[in-house]
Amino acid sequence: MTDPATPPNGPTGQDPAAPLDVASLQARLARFAAARDWGPFHTPKNLATALSVEASELVEIFQWLTPEQSTRVMEDEDSAHRVEDEIADVLAYLLQLCEVLGVDALAALSAKIDRNERRFPLPGA
Amino acid sequence: MTDPATPPNGPTGQDPAAPLDVASLQARLARFAAARDWGPFHTPKNLATALSVEASELVEIFQWLTPEQSTRVMEDEDSAHRVEDEIADVLAYLLQLCEVLGVDALAALSAKIDRNERRFPLPGA
Amino acid sequence: MTDPATPPNGPTGQDPAAPLDVASLQARLARFAAARDWGPFHTPKNLATALSVEASELVEIFQWLTPEQSTRVMEDEDSAHRVEDEIADVLAYLLQLCEVLGVDALAALSAKIDRNERRFPLPGA
Amino acid sequence: MTDPATPPNGPTGQDPAAPLDVASLQARLARFAAARDWGPFHTPKNLATALSVEASELVEIFQWLTPEQSTRVMEDEDSAHRVEDEIADVLAYLLQLCEVLGVDALAALSAKIDRNERRFPLPGA
Repeated sequence: MTDPATPPNGPTGQDPAAPLDVASLQARLARFAAARDWGPFHTPKNLATALSVEASELVEIFQWLTPEQSTRVMEDEDSAHRVEDEIADVLAYLLQLCEVLGVDALAALSAKIDRNERRFPLPGA
Repeated sequence: MTDPATPPNGPTGQDPAAPLDVASLQARLARFAAARDWGPFHTPKNLATALSVEASELVEIFQWLTPEQSTRVMEDEDSAHRVEDEIADVLAYLLQLCEVLGVDALAALSAKIDRNERRFPLPGA
Repeated sequence: MTDPATPPNGPTGQDPAAPLDVASLQARLARFAAARDWGPFHTPKNLATALSVEASELVEIFQWLTPEQSTRVMEDEDSAHRVEDEIADVLAYLLQLCEVLGVDALAALSAKIDRNERRFPLPGA
Repeated sequence: MTDPATPPNGPTGQDPAAPLDVASLQARLARFAAARDWGPFHTPKNLATALSVEASELVEIFQWLTPEQSTRVMEDEDSAHRVEDEIADVLAYLLQLCEVLGVDALAALSAKIDRNERRFPLPGA
């Protein structure tokens, strides 16, 4: 695996060997912003705000759909692309927020599911 | 590694051996909701809406803070827990939305970063 | 004053004499949607969702600005128009939601300020 | 009518004679914040952010309801109070934002409806 700290693929920094896991994508996002000097804009407050804006752009795709229509949103090529694009944007800002705050998103989610299993025990449990 | 399809740890379904990766957490969330019959509530529209609500709960932690104060939010135990909890909630709904829509969140993000590297090339690229 | 229930100004329904008050604008919005058969889309859930989407479009104008830059947003013609447009959109959905639910927005706000004056009394009060 | 600039009713500033119109409520909100020295927190950016947070609290009331259930939300006393409370909060932050930016919310909405009547003309218009 290529060392994520030294992308080998020219001035765009594109790294085709980057694995699809959270740590690698989070590092890729950090390099992307650093290379463009976006750091000053990426305060935790601004990143959380940007995340909420993207979450609303995702909701917007569904806002006039019935619940049943919403289940078929991936059947149309245009709305499918919009959905994937906004999901990517939400995840991007979530990981950038985790990066600047030093939060492990997967560990936080695992701990939350543990707590929810205690809060909402199954019948007979 | 324990087979994620058959959690061995009693009626609560808690699976201490589940690895911290997106696929495992996404499967764990799906089992959790299915076991409690939450399926009918989890239309894509409702999940996207719930995600945006949690994103706003995350923003709320920062809403009266200055940009500088926001960088120190993890230094206070209470706000640190709130931040981790809301990050977990946003990720939970994002993965549940991906599950019902059949979207691969990591692949979508990787493709988005590829597109952004072309849209925002580095000087000299 | 022209009776808001019977706009006199041709097929577009434009009523230049409609006073600038909440009740008249709320009625104007209701006629606009009814004339275009938008009723089925205007469930309370959809209207609340649309309102939150517009609120995020308003936030988006500010998301990378510093607090100080945000105070000067009306000095640029383009951002000033965007701000007014999104404020209008938020108010439009708020009033349409009040219309379908039978809520009096101004009375609700007045009562809320009363409650806040008791919750946050001035020193010496 | 009582002069909104000089509330006569003691240290809480409560003014029972304040009419229910946008200008009076906007002034009442401004006095409330000024009396508590909340000015530094009320940057346009923070007010827009707070508005979006309240808009999401309003959506949250509906997030697991079906469209049909959402039409009956005012029939339950608790959810009716929650709805009115969040509508009030959204309107409060909208008017406070308009106050600090010098935007006339009602004029902005009226102009927006005019534009929409041109964008979405009725058949035969």
